[in-house]
Amino acid sequence: MMAPVLDGSRLAGCYCQSFVKESRIPWPKACAFSRLSKVFSQNSLISSTAKFTSSPVPFLGVGCVIKKKGVNVLSADISALNLASEFLYACDDEYDGVIIDPESLPSSANAFVSALRASLFQLETEGLCTSGKKGVWLKILSEQADLVPIAVQEGFTYHHAEPGYVMLTYWIPDEPCMLPASPSHQIGVAGFVLNDKREVLVVKEKCPCSCSGVWKLPTGYINKSEDIFSGAIREVKEETGVDTIFQEMVAFRHAHLVAFEKSDILFVCMLKPLSSEITIDEKELQTAEWMPLDELLEQPFYLEDHMSRKVIDICIKAYEDQYSGFIARQLNSKLDGKLSYLYYNELKNISSIVM
Amino acid sequence: MMAPVLDGSRLAGCYCQSFVKESRIPWPKACAFSRLSKVFSQNSLISSTAKFTSSPVPFLGVGCVIKKKGVNVLSADISALNLASEFLYACDDEYDGVIIDPESLPSSANAFVSALRASLFQLETEGLCTSGKKGVWLKILSEQADLVPIAVQEGFTYHHAEPGYVMLTYWIPDEPCMLPASPSHQIGVAGFVLNDKREVLVVKEKCPCSCSGVWKLPTGYINKSEDIFSGAIREVKEETGVDTIFQEMVAFRHAHLVAFEKSDILFVCMLKPLSSEITIDEKELQTAEWMPLDELLEQPFYLEDHMSRKVIDICIKAYEDQYSGFIARQLNSKLDGKLSYLYYNELKNISSIVM
Repeated sequence: MMAPVLDGSRLAGCYCQSFVKESRIPWPKACAFSRLSKVFSQNSLISSTAKFTSSPVPFLGVGCVIKKKGVNVLSADISALNLASEFLYACDDEYDGVIIDPESLPSSANAFVSALRASLFQLETEGLCTSGKKGVWLKILSEQADLVPIAVQEGFTYHHAEPGYVMLTYWIPDEPCMLPASPSHQIGVAGFVLNDKREVLVVKEKCPCSCSGVWKLPTGYINKSEDIFSGAIREVKEETGVDTIFQEMVAFRHAHLVAFEKSDILFVCMLKPLSSEITIDEKELQTAEWMPLDELLEQPFYLEDHMSRKVIDICIKAYEDQYSGFIARQLNSKLDGKLSYLYYNELKNISSIVM
Repeated sequence: MMAPVLDGSRLAGCYCQSFVKESRIPWPKACAFSRLSKVFSQNSLISSTAKFTSSPVPFLGVGCVIKKKGVNVLSADISALNLASEFLYACDDEYDGVIIDPESLPSSANAFVSALRASLFQLETEGLCTSGKKGVWLKILSEQADLVPIAVQEGFTYHHAEPGYVMLTYWIPDEPCMLPASPSHQIGVAGFVLNDKREVLVVKEKCPCSCSGVWKLPTGYINKSEDIFSGAIREVKEETGVDTIFQEMVAFRHAHLVAFEKSDILFVCMLKPLSSEITIDEKELQTAEWMPLDELLEQPFYLEDHMSRKVIDICIKAYEDQYSGFIARQLNSKLDGKLSYLYYNELKNISSIVM
């Protein structure tokens, strides 16, 4: 069926929208060691394997230690102190991996390296033979930064980072890592706002970059978990004070190697103005104004930039109902139980073109 | 004019497609210290300011140390050794910031903290009065991981990370940070491939997630710097062995809080098959087949999942030329001198609907 195409699950690090699944499934019983652990061979750590194979306490990834909204829920028969001194807490993800609970990380370097090695050894020796665990996610908070060099030394690789933490990963099998890559794109929005006098809302930014001093559409990045159409409306309001409503997304440009060698998608949104008074954000803008469309088209730059000329053509056609972009509709998916927006060409737009 | 909307420049961390600009502009002359450095007040470091105000050697961000493809180019009158012992090398970015050259980082913790403090102090005291430098980018390679806790201690914040390095930032002014956020989105592609027998190419993945066991379209993530249509063609080929060509992007779903609390855009692409023999990628798939469209539509899931049903309707209409999605056209932009793809509704498609 078509449905699963929308569940967010894609291999090359397959995962679904519910990335982390809390789980009470018991960790598989210890088994004979089929191979030396990569960690052990890397660090030539000598240790008694009996300790792990016979240990009655939970291991890395064991289901009886569940992280719920930052609270560790422990089974009654387990001593957290005893565990913390030897193993790291973790919960399973849905994709043959485990996620170490950052709140379970020992503060001392020695305790951390010891618990990390013991846990990785347990995971590798058990995981490879029965549970099939392949990847380990390790989130280290800023206040735990002393642990970062240790994790790297133990074979972890940086995955992504945000203010407040860095996420590292460890891939067990001797095959290419299948964990999902870190986010690769920034999403920008541009608002094309034309009033009933055929005046376009344009701005000049203070940014000292190559666009400095040129008239442009209000643009910006969408915020975390913000929708494209909402971001376009917000950016126009923040930069110019003009209230708008979303009509359609008319085109987007996909550019590569922008910042940090990542990529960038800029969605051009047609917005209808609900107010006309301009109040600029003086931190971001030099100025803003309603510029007659003809005056905009007469600027020399328009003749020299193919990308820009094409976008101008598209926006004008959209304004004149001779073009059909994508509208946004919120729909529910059974697979993740989430409401999310589908952007597509509303057929009534096309019929309006036919008429 | 419209052009600048496509230059990739957007505030809230304004930047353009050419994020880092090499520069030979000399660093501004030292000036009277208008305020105590944030770093100094944070770490109560006592130091002679005379050393910095009167120093004849280049400071952080000075133009005479330029990083070109990993090679430091030094002016003849400067001793690199002397510099490296006291200051970090950097080049300017376009947006009131500097980017520390990771190859200039001292290997010893003491030398690093000393050079970092001296450089930050220099930047803050000079930068705030004349050059207007506001942000510092510090890229620390995996092999330099020992320096990460020091940078965090000195007031740096994690920005993003990739296998091989972590990027940290430092924001000088006493106002909200305007540096661009780290990448926020993963980009997925799904290939809708229908042959002339009205059979759809569908797969069952090995992924143990919620889509396991259901027939779905071939899907995957686009690779670094890969275009959307290319990614769809590649994923179909990798998973099923079927060769295709891109026809149009018919719709996309924007979902939030997917992996790592980031967002996800899945582009559904209509592809035309050029071959029919299926050879599955056994690492990723359980099976794949050409399934009659009617059989796909009869599956119960289709009736229960609104998002999926809508996408099915759209794809069928597109196949029957009763729908117009976006095609991709490569265009040049004068602003960054780059060719990139613009996705839009090719008007000939609409005229075909009119007919």
